[in-house]
Amino acid sequence: MNELGPIPTPEAPAPNILRCAYMEIVVSDLAASRAFYVDTLGLVVTKETDDALYLRTFDEFIHHNLVLREGPVPAIAAFAYRVRSPEDVDKAEAYYRELGCKTLRKAEGFVDGIGDAVRVEDPLGFPYEFFYECDHVERMCWDYDKQGPGALVRLDHFNQVFPDVVNGSKYLEDLGFRRTEDIKDDEDVTYAAWFARKHTVHDTALTGGDGPRMHHIAFATHEKHNILYICDKLGALRQSDAIERGPGRHGVSNAFYLYLRDPDGHRVEIYTQDYYTGDPDNPTITWDVHDNQRRDWWGHLVVPSWYRDASLVLDLEGNPQPLVARHEPKELDVTIGADGFSYTRKGDTDKGFKVGMQL
Amino acid sequence: MNELGPIPTPEAPAPNILRCAYMEIVVSDLAASRAFYVDTLGLVVTKETDDALYLRTFDEFIHHNLVLREGPVPAIAAFAYRVRSPEDVDKAEAYYRELGCKTLRKAEGFVDGIGDAVRVEDPLGFPYEFFYECDHVERMCWDYDKQGPGALVRLDHFNQVFPDVVNGSKYLEDLGFRRTEDIKDDEDVTYAAWFARKHTVHDTALTGGDGPRMHHIAFATHEKHNILYICDKLGALRQSDAIERGPGRHGVSNAFYLYLRDPDGHRVEIYTQDYYTGDPDNPTITWDVHDNQRRDWWGHLVVPSWYRDASLVLDLEGNPQPLVARHEPKELDVTIGADGFSYTRKGDTDKGFKVGMQL
Amino acid sequence: MNELGPIPTPEAPAPNILRCAYMEIVVSDLAASRAFYVDTLGLVVTKETDDALYLRTFDEFIHHNLVLREGPVPAIAAFAYRVRSPEDVDKAEAYYRELGCKTLRKAEGFVDGIGDAVRVEDPLGFPYEFFYECDHVERMCWDYDKQGPGALVRLDHFNQVFPDVVNGSKYLEDLGFRRTEDIKDDEDVTYAAWFARKHTVHDTALTGGDGPRMHHIAFATHEKHNILYICDKLGALRQSDAIERGPGRHGVSNAFYLYLRDPDGHRVEIYTQDYYTGDPDNPTITWDVHDNQRRDWWGHLVVPSWYRDASLVLDLEGNPQPLVARHEPKELDVTIGADGFSYTRKGDTDKGFKVGMQL
Amino acid sequence: MNELGPIPTPEAPAPNILRCAYMEIVVSDLAASRAFYVDTLGLVVTKETDDALYLRTFDEFIHHNLVLREGPVPAIAAFAYRVRSPEDVDKAEAYYRELGCKTLRKAEGFVDGIGDAVRVEDPLGFPYEFFYECDHVERMCWDYDKQGPGALVRLDHFNQVFPDVVNGSKYLEDLGFRRTEDIKDDEDVTYAAWFARKHTVHDTALTGGDGPRMHHIAFATHEKHNILYICDKLGALRQSDAIERGPGRHGVSNAFYLYLRDPDGHRVEIYTQDYYTGDPDNPTITWDVHDNQRRDWWGHLVVPSWYRDASLVLDLEGNPQPLVARHEPKELDVTIGADGFSYTRKGDTDKGFKVGMQL
Repeated sequence: MNELGPIPTPEAPAPNILRCAYMEIVVSDLAASRAFYVDTLGLVVTKETDDALYLRTFDEFIHHNLVLREGPVPAIAAFAYRVRSPEDVDKAEAYYRELGCKTLRKAEGFVDGIGDAVRVEDPLGFPYEFFYECDHVERMCWDYDKQGPGALVRLDHFNQVFPDVVNGSKYLEDLGFRRTEDIKDDEDVTYAAWFARKHTVHDTALTGGDGPRMHHIAFATHEKHNILYICDKLGALRQSDAIERGPGRHGVSNAFYLYLRDPDGHRVEIYTQDYYTGDPDNPTITWDVHDNQRRDWWGHLVVPSWYRDASLVLDLEGNPQPLVARHEPKELDVTIGADGFSYTRKGDTDKGFKVGMQL
Repeated sequence: MNELGPIPTPEAPAPNILRCAYMEIVVSDLAASRAFYVDTLGLVVTKETDDALYLRTFDEFIHHNLVLREGPVPAIAAFAYRVRSPEDVDKAEAYYRELGCKTLRKAEGFVDGIGDAVRVEDPLGFPYEFFYECDHVERMCWDYDKQGPGALVRLDHFNQVFPDVVNGSKYLEDLGFRRTEDIKDDEDVTYAAWFARKHTVHDTALTGGDGPRMHHIAFATHEKHNILYICDKLGALRQSDAIERGPGRHGVSNAFYLYLRDPDGHRVEIYTQDYYTGDPDNPTITWDVHDNQRRDWWGHLVVPSWYRDASLVLDLEGNPQPLVARHEPKELDVTIGADGFSYTRKGDTDKGFKVGMQL
Repeated sequence: MNELGPIPTPEAPAPNILRCAYMEIVVSDLAASRAFYVDTLGLVVTKETDDALYLRTFDEFIHHNLVLREGPVPAIAAFAYRVRSPEDVDKAEAYYRELGCKTLRKAEGFVDGIGDAVRVEDPLGFPYEFFYECDHVERMCWDYDKQGPGALVRLDHFNQVFPDVVNGSKYLEDLGFRRTEDIKDDEDVTYAAWFARKHTVHDTALTGGDGPRMHHIAFATHEKHNILYICDKLGALRQSDAIERGPGRHGVSNAFYLYLRDPDGHRVEIYTQDYYTGDPDNPTITWDVHDNQRRDWWGHLVVPSWYRDASLVLDLEGNPQPLVARHEPKELDVTIGADGFSYTRKGDTDKGFKVGMQL
Repeated sequence: MNELGPIPTPEAPAPNILRCAYMEIVVSDLAASRAFYVDTLGLVVTKETDDALYLRTFDEFIHHNLVLREGPVPAIAAFAYRVRSPEDVDKAEAYYRELGCKTLRKAEGFVDGIGDAVRVEDPLGFPYEFFYECDHVERMCWDYDKQGPGALVRLDHFNQVFPDVVNGSKYLEDLGFRRTEDIKDDEDVTYAAWFARKHTVHDTALTGGDGPRMHHIAFATHEKHNILYICDKLGALRQSDAIERGPGRHGVSNAFYLYLRDPDGHRVEIYTQDYYTGDPDNPTITWDVHDNQRRDWWGHLVVPSWYRDASLVLDLEGNPQPLVARHEPKELDVTIGADGFSYTRKGDTDKGFKVGMQL
C-alpha cells in the first residue's frame, strides 16, 4: 500500500548538494542541553546567545553543525544541507517551487554564521534548508589539547522517520542522493533506506514509521574506543540511562555505533568507520529484515523505543508537522515479540542467549 | 538463612597459591569445541590427542590454561591452581584432609604437562587441583605474526556458582584469597564476591545461585578493540548467537568484558583492564545489588540466562555433583522483572530506554 | 627558478576524476612481492597469473587497487584514476592530446578487470591512466574472519616526486584536483603540495625532488592500532628493517602514518584518519618548511632516504623516464644537517632530544 | 672488570617488598613541573603545599606515587617501596644496618601521607625508602569524567643507572627481586637487567652506566592509543621536543613505550602491556646487545641521550651522590656509530632505512 504516491520529478535541475551540514533543534531547557552537548559530549562552542547555542565538531571549518534554540516544543526546525555554489540555492528554490512546496528565502540566512539560504517544507513534510554561504571558523583537527577522549570530529548524517520509504526514496534519489543500503523483506516491503551525497554511507536515511519525524543526528569519532569512552563517562556521571542502544557494530553501514537520548529525548548517534561510496556504480546492499545481524552485527536486539520514539519536525511557521501513520508492516512488529521472527543463520531456528530472546 | 554453615579453619597451614592456572572441561564434541576455542578464539594448541586438547594463551609459559576432554557429560573436571612450591602441594593435601574432604594425589599429574598434583572435592563441592610442577613451553608474547586481532594473552580467572556466598567466602579467605569486591543489599545479603591471589581483581569469584556449578572461565586480551573484534568475527561467521552478554564495561572490577557460550553452553568471558590489588590492605569495594551500573557500568540489563545457566562440576570419580539450591534472594529476582528494581541514581525513579526497561 | 614552465590549460574539458583507483608496479621477483603484500600486509588476492598479481583492499568493490607485474626494471607502469563515466575516458584522451601528450587507448583495458581505458604520458612525465569500466568484486567490509589485525581497507592515495611543484600543481588543479595543503618557505618556494578528488586530504601529492618518480602508494586502515600491529608483526618476522619511517602522526593531513619499503624498495605508506575536504572552499593549509612538526607532529626527524629514494616511472613503451633535477632548494637540505634548521616553537632555538638532533 | 665487588648477603631476612610505590623528585621550578605533570600528563593532585606537590595515578589508593619538591639541585631524593607489613620496615632497617649502610628511621614518615618509614643509602648509593603505613585515598578507576585521553593509571616501575650491573643485580636478587629479563653480549658482559616484585616485568631495573643515577620513572596507561594521544597533545602544545624517544614497542618487556623529559630533564616513561611474571620459575629472557630489536622491536635506533643522560640521586643529607664510571663496555658504544654494530637478522648485514643507519 502506498501512503504518499510518487512525487513527480521536477524538470528544474536539482541543486548540487555537498553534504548534510547542520541541524537546528528546539530544546526545552538550553542549560540542560548545553550540559549534554558541551560538557558531556564535548562539542565545540562557536557562538552562544541568550536563547541559542552554535556548536561544531573538531574537524569542521564552517560555522556550526548544530544549532540548539530554546523553545516551547522540542522539535527539529531544520535539516540543513550545504550546496556546491550560491547558484545551487537558487536551483533548490526553483526545484521545490516546481514541486509545489512552501519555500522561504533569506539572503541574510536563518541562523548566525550562515548566509543566503532557502528553507522548504519538502514533499515529505520535512523542513530542509539549502545554503552555500557561511562563515569559516578554525578547523581544530590538530587541537589535541582541547579534544577529550570522546572527541566528536565530524557531523556524519541525519536520519528521518517517514511512513512511505519507497516514495520517499524516489524523491531523495531525484534530488541527487545515491542509495547505498536498504532493508526489505521477501514481499518487497522496504523498511529503511540510506542515502549519500558525500562519500560515506549516508548523509541522510529514511526509517519507516509514522512521520515526518527526526530519528537521529549522528556525529563521528575517529576510533571505536572514543565511543566506548563516552559510555564510560556517562556511567561516571551516573547518566548511563542516557544510553538507549549500543555500543555495537551495525550490519548496515558496517559502522560502530552508540545511540544516546538528549535531555528532551532527541536521539544522537555516535558513529565511526563506514566505507567509501563515492563511485556512481557503488553497489547497493539489501538486507533482509529478518536477519538479526542487519542492525546489530552481533545479533543484539534493537530496543523498542529506538523504533517507536522520534522527534517532531516543524513547518516553516514553527508549528509541528502532523504525523502520517505507516500502513506497511513495521520493522518493530515483524522482528520483535511473539509475531516477529529473525535469524542468525537463515533457516536455522536457534534463538541464542540475548535479552530479546529471553525477556 | 545459612545453607552450608561455616567451614572450619584448619590448623594446617594453607598452601601458598600463585594463581588460577588451568581448567579441565569435559565437552561433548571435541571437534566442535576445537573449532570454537582454536579456530574462532585463537588459543594456542600445546598438545592434541584423540580425546583431548591442551590449549594456552599467548603470554603463558606453563603447558596449558585449558584442557578440553571429550566425554559423555559436559561438565568441569578441575579448577587448577598453581602453588608456589612442591611443598605447597603437600600442604594442600593436608589442609583438605583436615577439612574432611576427599583428596587424590598423583605424582605423575592428572593431565599431560603437569607433574605432582592433588585434586580435592572442596567443602563447597568443587573439584580443585593444586600443582607446582609443570612443563615449560614457549612464551609467545612476541609472536605477533601468529596473534590474530582478538588474541587471548592470559588466563584471567574462574567464576563459581554457589548458594551460600558468605560461608563460601570465608572458606576462600581462609585459603589465602583476598576479597576485592562484592555485591550486597541493605539487609546484608551477599549476592557475589571476588577473590584474588595474583595482583588482579580475581583468580576466582563466587556468584550466588544453585551450585556447585562453574559460571565462567575468563581469558584476557590486551585492549578493548581485541574484544570488539571477537564480536565482529562471530558476526562474520554467522555465529553471533554465541554472544550471550556484552561487550560492556563492568562496574565490579572496572574491566571491559564479553560473555560467550561454547558449543556445550560452557560460558567463556573475554576480559581486559582491571586494576592492581596486590597490597594486603587493598580496599574492598561493596556494590549495592540495586545499582544498575554494578554489573554493567553503562546500565545495560544482565541477560537472565547469565544468572540462570552454569556448568555442572564433577566429583573425583567423574560424576556430576548434585546441586544445592540457594535459599537467599537471587540477584536475578531482585533486579529484573516486576519485582526487581534497580537505579542509576539512588533515589531516582527514572527508568531509561534500555531493553530491560522496555520488554 | 622554473624547471618546467607553466603547462597550458586545455580548452577541452577535464575528465571528471572520481579517485585514485590502482597502481601498476613492476617488481623484480613476484614471489618476494607476494610475500610482502599478501602474506605480511594481508591484501586480498583478486586474481593471480604467472607474471602478475591483482590485489585489493577489504572495502573495495572494483577489481583491484594494485597490480604487481614481474619485469626487469622495478618501476611504476601506471597511476590509474577512475572517472565518473565512460565519456570521461574520451574527455581524458582529448584533454591530453590537446596538451600534446602521447596517449594510448585500449577498449579492452591494459590490465585484467579493467575495461576501456586511456594511458597517457602526462606533461610531468608520469604514466597516468583513466578508466570507468571495471569488474565488480565482493566488498569484504564485513569479512572480519578474513581480516587480520593490520587489515588494509582502502587505497588512500598516490605520492609523486617532481622537481617543479608550482607548475606541477597548476597542471593538477587544471585537471580538477583541489589543493588541500602545502609546504612552503618564507621566500615562496613550494616544497610539496597535496591534491584531492575524493573527500580525503589527497588522491595524489607532489613532493619536490628529482623526477618524475613515484614516492609512495598509501593504503588506509581503520584505526591506529592496526598500523602499530603491522610494525609488531614485522618485528616478529625479523623484518623490522622494512620499516623506513614512523609510525607517527603527520602534521600535514593530521593522519597517522607508517612508511615501509617493499622488496624492490618501492615505498608503501599505511595511513589512517585525515579529515573531510569535499567542500569547494575547503581551506588550504600552508606549513612552514622549517616547522619540525609539519611532517611529524611529534617532531621526529624525517629519515634522509625518505627524501632521496623514489621509484622510477615508465613511459608508454615501458622504458624508464629520465629524471629532471630539482633546481629549487630541497626540503632535505634546508631542514636536516648543518645547513638546515627547524623549530618546534618559532623563534625558539631549543633543539630537543631526538635522534636528528644528536647524531 | 668489577667496579663494585660482590655485596654480601645479609643474614638478616630481607623485607617483603610489595612494589615500587612512589618517587620523591627535587625540581627546580615547581610551577613548571606542575604544568608538566598535572596539566599535560594529567596526574591526580592529592595534596599541594608551597614547596611540594603530591601526585597519584587514577587506579591508586595510597596517598601518592610521586612527590615533587622544589629545591636547588634537580635530583632524586627517594625511591620508595611499599612493604607487606609494619614489621617489614624493621626488617629493612636491620637488613641495611647489617650491610653497613646509613639508615634513617622516621616514625612520622619523610613525606606527607606516609607513616613509619626507613630511608637508606643502599650499597649502590641509591636512596631507598621502605614503608607500610600510609593514608588511603579515593581510587579513581571509575572516574572516567576526570580521566583524559592519556590517563596514567598506575606507577609501573623505576629504572636506575649503575656501572656494575652484575653485582648490582645480585644485591637486588638478595633483596627478593626476581630477574625477568636482561641484555648481554657473547662475552658475558651484562648491559642491563630487569627486576620484579609485583607481577609485572619490573619494579625496578639496572641500566649500565655511570652511576648511581635515576634513569626514569614509568607510569602505565590502559592502552596504546592513550600513549599516542600524549604525543599528539604535546604536538598541539608545541612541546614535542619533550619527546625524547618513541612511541614504540620494546623488545625487552614486550611493552609499548614513550620517553619524555620533564622541565628539569628528569626522564618519564609512559608504558603499557607487559606480561605476568608472578611465578617463581618465571623464565628469564636474555637479549643480545647487538639485536637491534631488543630495545625497539621495530628496529628504531635508541637516541644517544637516552643512554647518556640521567638524574642525580641524593644521599640522606640531601647532597648529590658522586658518580662512579662504568668500566665495562657501554651499550651506546657497542651499538651506535662507527664501532657499534647491530642486526635485525643475526648474520645478516643489511642495514635498513632508519635514521641511525643514515645520519
